Amino acid sequence: MTPFESLRIEARLAPESGIVAVMNHGRRREGIIPLWAGEGDLPTPDFIRQAGADALLAGETFYTWQRGIPELREALARYHNRHFSTRLTEDNFLVTGSGMQSIQLALQAVAGHGDEVVYFSPAWPNFAAAAGIGGAKPIAVQLDNGNSGWALDIEKLKALITSRTKAIFINSPSNPTGWTADKQTLRDILKLARKHGIWIIADEIYALFSYSEDRAASFMDIMDPEDRVIFVNSFSKNWAMTGWRVGWLTVHPSLAQVFENLIQYSTSGVAQFMQKGAVAALDHGDDFIHMQVRRARQARDILCDALASTGKAQVTPPEGAFYLFFGLEGIKDSMSAAFSMVDQANIGIAPGTAFGSGADGYFRICFNRKLDDIRTAADRLVDWIGKNA
Amino acid sequence: MTPFESLRIEARLAPESGIVAVMNHGRRREGIIPLWAGEGDLPTPDFIRQAGADALLAGETFYTWQRGIPELREALARYHNRHFSTRLTEDNFLVTGSGMQSIQLALQAVAGHGDEVVYFSPAWPNFAAAAGIGGAKPIAVQLDNGNSGWALDIEKLKALITSRTKAIFINSPSNPTGWTADKQTLRDILKLARKHGIWIIADEIYALFSYSEDRAASFMDIMDPEDRVIFVNSFSKNWAMTGWRVGWLTVHPSLAQVFENLIQYSTSGVAQFMQKGAVAALDHGDDFIHMQVRRARQARDILCDALASTGKAQVTPPEGAFYLFFGLEGIKDSMSAAFSMVDQANIGIAPGTAFGSGADGYFRICFNRKLDDIRTAADRLVDWIGKNA
Repeated sequence: MTPFESLRIEARLAPESGIVAVMNHGRRREGIIPLWAGEGDLPTPDFIRQAGADALLAGETFYTWQRGIPELREALARYHNRHFSTRLTEDNFLVTGSGMQSIQLALQAVAGHGDEVVYFSPAWPNFAAAAGIGGAKPIAVQLDNGNSGWALDIEKLKALITSRTKAIFINSPSNPTGWTADKQTLRDILKLARKHGIWIIADEIYALFSYSEDRAASFMDIMDPEDRVIFVNSFSKNWAMTGWRVGWLTVHPSLAQVFENLIQYSTSGVAQFMQKGAVAALDHGDDFIHMQVRRARQARDILCDALASTGKAQVTPPEGAFYLFFGLEGIKDSMSAAFSMVDQANIGIAPGTAFGSGADGYFRICFNRKLDDIRTAADRLVDWIGKNA
Repeated sequence: MTPFESLRIEARLAPESGIVAVMNHGRRREGIIPLWAGEGDLPTPDFIRQAGADALLAGETFYTWQRGIPELREALARYHNRHFSTRLTEDNFLVTGSGMQSIQLALQAVAGHGDEVVYFSPAWPNFAAAAGIGGAKPIAVQLDNGNSGWALDIEKLKALITSRTKAIFINSPSNPTGWTADKQTLRDILKLARKHGIWIIADEIYALFSYSEDRAASFMDIMDPEDRVIFVNSFSKNWAMTGWRVGWLTVHPSLAQVFENLIQYSTSGVAQFMQKGAVAALDHGDDFIHMQVRRARQARDILCDALASTGKAQVTPPEGAFYLFFGLEGIKDSMSAAFSMVDQANIGIAPGTAFGSGADGYFRICFNRKLDDIRTAADRLVDWIGKNA
């Protein structure tokens, strides 16, 4: 048996990213417009980078609070109370090494070997993969794609709840579909979770990227403090900090010590100098967020109009997040089409195959990018569709 | 059932750190000399901080290679080939979000629910805790403490290997005991692992903190490339980067893609600007390491001499790492003694209770600190022993 073969089966089964395959094919092409990854084109704003660099140069390089420095947890409370009308305190928050780690920690806390966790598909693939590595079984509930966009049929969710179900993972606004649950849908899900004693893992990282309201509906609007809801979040999108790998958890204070222990035994905290940058982001970053959302709304409309003009695209303007998830008439193999878009049109688009069941014929464009690039990409895409679809 | 009660049992059982209890008792006392944590008193060297800050300010804030930037993996190869006479290449390395995360990833790769992993006790508690969170059962092999210090009886290890054993975790030089396996011991362990098809998880992060040779013996000295050995490592100790949370894995190249996937689904990589600091550390940090080792040797000797002078301490100068692990005649409850040392002597020392079975009557001092502090701490400790032991 080779070393590879003697690895744990759950580790060997963790999939390679389907997006990365296309990125590797195209990332060195001159002039390519990369819309494949879930990040914008802007670096982290100056004032955030400066706050981080100042703390680093000042020697804030020692071990620090495992759950995050008090200053950052207080800033998180201010941010939430400002945007979500909550009354949270520093005791509700733990700082983590990315939104992804927040998800991993939430899974460690509620679901392991032999348990089931439910999520909505099409989906960003990382939740299901992380569940599988931990020994739990991810169960996909298919969202329906109709004339008014993606929607959840709550009966489909109910039908998949079993005695082994430990958690429902809900990413709203959704990557990749832009599906955004309204308050009534959140109420229905919470009611179901309460009835069965199931946890909700709420990934609302795109809550402020909302194109119909100031922000998307949140479980924070409808829940009681004692409800079993764990919020996973990230600095990546709101403040263009994808590369930092800093996130947070919002939990009932009675759970904080357990999560602190889980942090201790996974990464043992987050660099204090990065946390100082994150404080600056929360306290002074609202204008940057609003600028990004305004720009993204225009980008979305440019792309939707362009796709509609072809008469061959199945597309509904997403209400939230910053992705366009669309089908093209006559195209079933999105992976080879994405390669062709790189080669023929010099645009980088993620194939739907990366997003699980029911998404093979779709494509995902990240439209959090400067409008000149978006217009050029739209022209190139229309041209490619004219020749290929 | 409260939210807390409905958490997964393995998560609830993850223990709080026994060191932190003493730290919280004493951290705000004026003039306390803190020797409790596993870090030195020096901030990260200037040239490393500057390299990180430069990259941050230059806007290196985007997603990057999941397994680490090629520049850092090449620097890791140079570092190993220089210090360990290996012929490793960038394909042997993955960058992680701390040595702790390296351990978690190694466990995810080789041991899950129902499996057993063996480690040597007294031990830094985090390996066993991380194994437990992952659903595996940690099995302690007791080291023996004789007149010449701590030693492994290989028969005790053999006796605990079962058909469920998936890995042997070996931390040499050891935190907390300073036990340092010689080449023959490593050969014996490797032979046993080969015979049973068991993985070795080698934590050699203190290899350069060696007081009898240039560096401690390493599995790299005796293994074949195809052996099932996963090395977990960290920038924390060699380069005073505890607070950065950056580490690495050294593995056979055939395993790298699996580990990259595990990284994708746990923290999704390490900040590129931190990786630039780590490159500087590897390429220009040898002098800093040597300075630390020279200073630590003197500190070790000062403390050993002081303890010996009391006639009440059971202590052997450790061959490696930077901890003194000692017993005191007539003292069995190290936790309450550690509290008393804070209150009466203004010194912070970790209680042996934090380090698992067979260590309740011991104390751990971290002696990676300036010698003035070490001398004062030695005086205070001798005084405390005179009054209490």
